[in-house]
Amino acid sequence: MQDAALVLYTDSSPNGFKATIALEETGLPYRLVHVDIDRGEHRQAEFLALNPAGRIPVLVDRKAGIVLFESAAILLYLAQSSGQLLEQAAQPRWAAITWLMYHSASVGPLLGQRVHFECFEAVPNPAAQKRYRALTEDAFAVLDQRLATQSWLAGESYSIADIASFAWLHIAALVGFDFSHYQHLNRWYRQVEQRPAVQRGIRLPAPATGP
Amino acid sequence: MQDAALVLYTDSSPNGFKATIALEETGLPYRLVHVDIDRGEHRQAEFLALNPAGRIPVLVDRKAGIVLFESAAILLYLAQSSGQLLEQAAQPRWAAITWLMYHSASVGPLLGQRVHFECFEAVPNPAAQKRYRALTEDAFAVLDQRLATQSWLAGESYSIADIASFAWLHIAALVGFDFSHYQHLNRWYRQVEQRPAVQRGIRLPAPATGP
Repeated sequence: MQDAALVLYTDSSPNGFKATIALEETGLPYRLVHVDIDRGEHRQAEFLALNPAGRIPVLVDRKAGIVLFESAAILLYLAQSSGQLLEQAAQPRWAAITWLMYHSASVGPLLGQRVHFECFEAVPNPAAQKRYRALTEDAFAVLDQRLATQSWLAGESYSIADIASFAWLHIAALVGFDFSHYQHLNRWYRQVEQRPAVQRGIRLPAPATGP
Repeated sequence: MQDAALVLYTDSSPNGFKATIALEETGLPYRLVHVDIDRGEHRQAEFLALNPAGRIPVLVDRKAGIVLFESAAILLYLAQSSGQLLEQAAQPRWAAITWLMYHSASVGPLLGQRVHFECFEAVPNPAAQKRYRALTEDAFAVLDQRLATQSWLAGESYSIADIASFAWLHIAALVGFDFSHYQHLNRWYRQVEQRPAVQRGIRLPAPATGP
């Protein structure tokens, strides 16, 4: 795929997996560039020229001359480019976008803080741990309630909202945040997990290993 | 506007101001419903039926039968409905979406945590304060760098990316997070602030008063 129009710069991370899963689902040809965060490659000038925030994933569409960062922007772009993973009809389309945004602003960032304080903070900070555990449990309950009445987050069809939410829950599961008692969320998680494209996506560029 | 198709449920908050500013900018007719968070109205069954996460803003398009929550989803919908605030050409369009997503996932949530730990946490938590101050200063620097070479976040045109970013920076300014030394960010902030629709939007349903 050396000549592919789409080039994905990524590393093994929840936000990176959103992009790799979506690319694998759509079948769009792409070239993958591993940006090794452990080696500081996300802080090198070449990468910062693509994303000044120094974060993966970044998607470049060389044919269209477009550089995208932020996983939710990349998901919306891949849905538009492929005509997949986002319904055209207004109601399911905006339901998918709403739940994608709920993930992006109100679930992913809080799970990120919980992972930080439970897994990476050198000096334990019980108050912060308690705060982010409570906030993410609230989010799990909201997702569980939605999935009690809908097959997928947007309704009848698997969409970019499911991909985004799954990617972070995959990391949550990996680091031991148990959400199996949210039965509808857990049912949905197992269904997403079984998809072949998801299994490929969470191993690109390498499987996540946890903290 | 009792018969307006669009109904906005909101309170005075950074995320609420994104929706009121965008509605005022576009000129779309709408009816405003004040959800008084201090009185717990966001936790009442009628509101939770619109947004199970119990957060404002919520936008209902009664004509289309669409219920949207999450401010970024509402901004995207208002841009599509009005044909304003988001360029049609691919490059500026996806630049706007990228910077909107950067705000939604990587700036707004962190500013929210900083406001919590600096203004609302009963027991001071210096480690958390330090973390969120550093992360939000990094974000200010990224925005400042972008605005050193571009008039607006998406490039040549004012867009929903500017509205989203402004709304949270307005609250940051109000609670005393000084970003005036980021000269390009500050220049942009003053330009957005002077827009008549922005001045109306930040007073709906009432001006924010800070912590």
